[in-house]
Amino acid sequence: MLEEMGKAARAASYQLATLSAPQKNAVLLTIAGLLEAESGAILAANELDLADARQNNMGAALLDRLTLTPERLKAIADDVRQVCSLADPVGQLIDGGQLNSGLRIERRRVPLGVVGVIYEARPNVTVDVATLCLKTGNAAILRGGKETFRTNSATVRVIQQALQQHSLPTAAVQAIENPDRELVNQLLKLDRYVDMLIPRGGAGLHKLCREQSTIPVITGGIGVCHLFVDESMDIDAALEVIVNAKKQRPSACNSLETLLVHQAIAPRFLPAFSARMAQENIPLHAEAQLLPQLKSGPASVVELADGDLDDEWLTLDLNVCLVDNLDHAVAHIRQHGTQHSDGILTRSIENAQRFVSQVDSAAVYVNASTRFTDGGQFGLGAEVAVSTQKLHARGPMGLEALTTWKWIAWGDDSLRA
Amino acid sequence: MLEEMGKAARAASYQLATLSAPQKNAVLLTIAGLLEAESGAILAANELDLADARQNNMGAALLDRLTLTPERLKAIADDVRQVCSLADPVGQLIDGGQLNSGLRIERRRVPLGVVGVIYEARPNVTVDVATLCLKTGNAAILRGGKETFRTNSATVRVIQQALQQHSLPTAAVQAIENPDRELVNQLLKLDRYVDMLIPRGGAGLHKLCREQSTIPVITGGIGVCHLFVDESMDIDAALEVIVNAKKQRPSACNSLETLLVHQAIAPRFLPAFSARMAQENIPLHAEAQLLPQLKSGPASVVELADGDLDDEWLTLDLNVCLVDNLDHAVAHIRQHGTQHSDGILTRSIENAQRFVSQVDSAAVYVNASTRFTDGGQFGLGAEVAVSTQKLHARGPMGLEALTTWKWIAWGDDSLRA
Repeated sequence: MLEEMGKAARAASYQLATLSAPQKNAVLLTIAGLLEAESGAILAANELDLADARQNNMGAALLDRLTLTPERLKAIADDVRQVCSLADPVGQLIDGGQLNSGLRIERRRVPLGVVGVIYEARPNVTVDVATLCLKTGNAAILRGGKETFRTNSATVRVIQQALQQHSLPTAAVQAIENPDRELVNQLLKLDRYVDMLIPRGGAGLHKLCREQSTIPVITGGIGVCHLFVDESMDIDAALEVIVNAKKQRPSACNSLETLLVHQAIAPRFLPAFSARMAQENIPLHAEAQLLPQLKSGPASVVELADGDLDDEWLTLDLNVCLVDNLDHAVAHIRQHGTQHSDGILTRSIENAQRFVSQVDSAAVYVNASTRFTDGGQFGLGAEVAVSTQKLHARGPMGLEALTTWKWIAWGDDSLRA
Repeated sequence: MLEEMGKAARAASYQLATLSAPQKNAVLLTIAGLLEAESGAILAANELDLADARQNNMGAALLDRLTLTPERLKAIADDVRQVCSLADPVGQLIDGGQLNSGLRIERRRVPLGVVGVIYEARPNVTVDVATLCLKTGNAAILRGGKETFRTNSATVRVIQQALQQHSLPTAAVQAIENPDRELVNQLLKLDRYVDMLIPRGGAGLHKLCREQSTIPVITGGIGVCHLFVDESMDIDAALEVIVNAKKQRPSACNSLETLLVHQAIAPRFLPAFSARMAQENIPLHAEAQLLPQLKSGPASVVELADGDLDDEWLTLDLNVCLVDNLDHAVAHIRQHGTQHSDGILTRSIENAQRFVSQVDSAAVYVNASTRFTDGGQFGLGAEVAVSTQKLHARGPMGLEALTTWKWIAWGDDSLRA
């Protein structure tokens, strides 16, 4: 079955690759319109998924993430319309020139071909990924979380209806509509037909893909993010940035997990920090030596346990460590970080520059919240994923990350000498 | 042992990443000088490898590939000097701007970190890869063919001597000096320390890496390349390009394997083609229907066997197929090609454009030999490998392919709203 899906997706991708930007935008507008016009079918499917989820005692936060409403569906449709306004990277001339042999070469952006995406129980991702792939002329094979299978199926049906209205093959967007995990394993081996695989989920899914996939994988989305409070920093300003990085959306991968405090500023910083954390209800996990200085603070201050520094909390919890100096801070980030987003809070231009040059993360910040690492914030207009690997794409992935290039060479019956 | 090598390479990579272009070029010049000054040790090691190879009855072509001479070593040293003259991509500003939040972001090129390369019995690759990695601030872990272990070890010793002279860690360039294949399997799992893996070898090695590696792999170098003779083509000009693409260096991945002939030009084309192939001593493998029209040609004309269209000959052999039209030619290339280098020979601008837009290969040619697909020919100044995958790099890989980027954001105690 997967073999057939792959073959059909590949065939569809050839057709998508030749569409012009206006043709692709027309399809997107039809999708947006149908998402509203056919909202009844999608919401009914979502209601069935929700009923199952309630029966399986799904938690309130997950249930909310799973829930579609007419308003949310409208917002999703509006996001699709917004994608129309983005520039199409396909066809862009990257570089080129005339060789000594007379050959004129050009490097042009083209679609990747077929993109596979494995994701969790977020029904909006289905539309998101499908439209970003179509916008860039790629076919998509989607495998959503089993909790949203009916919602996803109904949504893909609507997208395929739009494709048909434009005489395009429905195989341009396909969903794996069987929750059998064996099909995921099959998808991972479909390198003959799938050009790129994007897992959007937890560390386990990323590990599975890295170990089992024969398709190039983009991994990311796991963020153990750090802020380092340098000795020269202004304490009040530091606290504002720390609270923003931690509290603005704790469940996001770019939120703060560990605060590193320069030992020279600690005696002045820690009392103010402790008081502010109490005010913000942020539970702390600190090195033993710091506990006495923090005990008067938040209700929960406990000693760091094994592994705390290497995992995302995804909650309001925050780790605190003392470091001797900038080198020590950099070494800590190299050891415990996930090369996602890390920053320095400092008033020293020299330290800022050293930190930026030495910390090897997708996004490195000077005096800013780590929460900015995001395709929308970075002006990419869309976000396919946040890559923490170094090949192909690093950091927020926009439309460009869904393309590759082709070298095109025009000769005059040219021979290599 | 590999774990230790990986850890040391990672530590060295942090130091390499902070070197300026002049500092890196100084190391390269020392390497070039030492390759000449210490040529005795390298040639002696090579002599031992050659003695073993002769004892194992290695073929003449492979023996020649394995052989170093003072002249060849001098040429390798000169290649290193030439790399100094290339622009350093590290530090290059790709793009950037100021966000609405006031945050100033920039996307800067940085080294990948640690690059692993697995290659065959070509002693020049050791110096090639090591110097291209150093030029771009990357550490390298090399695993050469077992036939050249002593040559490679002696060469790496010289490179490490140069590193020491510049107070750089020798772990910046390490070779796996044990021919045990189990170490290759260990290298493939070293994703914690190695950022990119480049296999330079046959299809088997590429398959092993794709299936077993947990490190992102760049695959490529396998080329089943096609030329399609369109009905509008000038026959004499077509023959010149075909001979160049096939004969100029048959063992190269960008040499011609299969000729597709439009049925409308076949009656005029095949007699001239047959005569020319006879003259050039090119053995043909043709569809049964074409055999009568080719029998008067070269000494060897046989019917195509199963699989002939899907493998590289790497010899003077050439496949010939008749196609009904351009669409048929494109379909053939999609089915049998390796997305390396494919071209059309035509006098029709419309057909040229259709071919270019529909053939999804790293390099697509109009009226030119496929032999141009090469970093040197394409003006990249160097060639790390030729990628036939679509992620990160496609086609000839120059210095840029050994880099990634880092998003650097300068704020003013900036908070996400």
